Amino acid sequence: MKFVFLFLGKTREKYLNDGIRDYVKRLERFVQVDIVVIRESVSKKLPENVLKQREAEQLLNHCSPSSLVVALDPHGTEHDSIELAALIGDWEDRGIRTISFLIGGHCGFHENVLNKADSVFSLSRLTFTHEMTRLILLEQLYRGWMIKSGRNYHY
Amino acid sequence: MKFVFLFLGKTREKYLNDGIRDYVKRLERFVQVDIVVIRESVSKKLPENVLKQREAEQLLNHCSPSSLVVALDPHGTEHDSIELAALIGDWEDRGIRTISFLIGGHCGFHENVLNKADSVFSLSRLTFTHEMTRLILLEQLYRGWMIKSGRNYHY
Repeated sequence: MKFVFLFLGKTREKYLNDGIRDYVKRLERFVQVDIVVIRESVSKKLPENVLKQREAEQLLNHCSPSSLVVALDPHGTEHDSIELAALIGDWEDRGIRTISFLIGGHCGFHENVLNKADSVFSLSRLTFTHEMTRLILLEQLYRGWMIKSGRNYHY
Repeated sequence: MKFVFLFLGKTREKYLNDGIRDYVKRLERFVQVDIVVIRESVSKKLPENVLKQREAEQLLNHCSPSSLVVALDPHGTEHDSIELAALIGDWEDRGIRTISFLIGGHCGFHENVLNKADSVFSLSRLTFTHEMTRLILLEQLYRGWMIKSGRNYHY
């Protein structure tokens, strides 16, 4: 199984980068992990929605046609960690090879991303920084994998 | 206003410590911040509930009688960031001087903590590591303060 993470913009905070690297390394014991960083569209001339649409195209172009697309959005469905573990098990059972996780930038996603996604997840009712969302998602997927495989992860 | 954070055990992950320090510094522009680290009770001889009760006593002993006690627990009430900002405003309006935020250890809280707390918050339906909970809470309180005061915090 392969997890592809599509991030809009680099992770600028060093401490978050360190944490992300830690959980990528942990996840790589079980799945292949690809991180794709897409440049955020910044322009003073174009309206926000046009920029978001451009970003949406870039994000979706990086999702292979056979991959399952999961977008992270505050209005998505909340799961607890046990449910997330069950979902990972379900993806495995269905023989899904690649799951693409899309995390937006400062302004969230264009509706095209949300319409195209197979699932839209919310990590919390709270709004997190988009960089912190990366770390939290990685930790949750690692936790989910550990729960699903009955391994000990007592944090 | 003073925010007192009561943590069970040190923050061992360096990258989380760096992030926590960053948000403490940011919050200190607006409120006094105290972090109190209480040693986790570890024993092979005593049952978990006895240890948790001991920890509960220690945690509650560090809450001044006049402080508002907020415990973080997965079964607490979820708020969004706007509601959290409104809560901070409400604490200010009520003239509350000190808010004590209690974050448990690996095994959660003894019921004495939950019974004594004025509010029990949940950050998410997901289970986070207790060390990551520290960073997320600090970021949310900073975000709440920025929202409440109409300041720009575009992350």
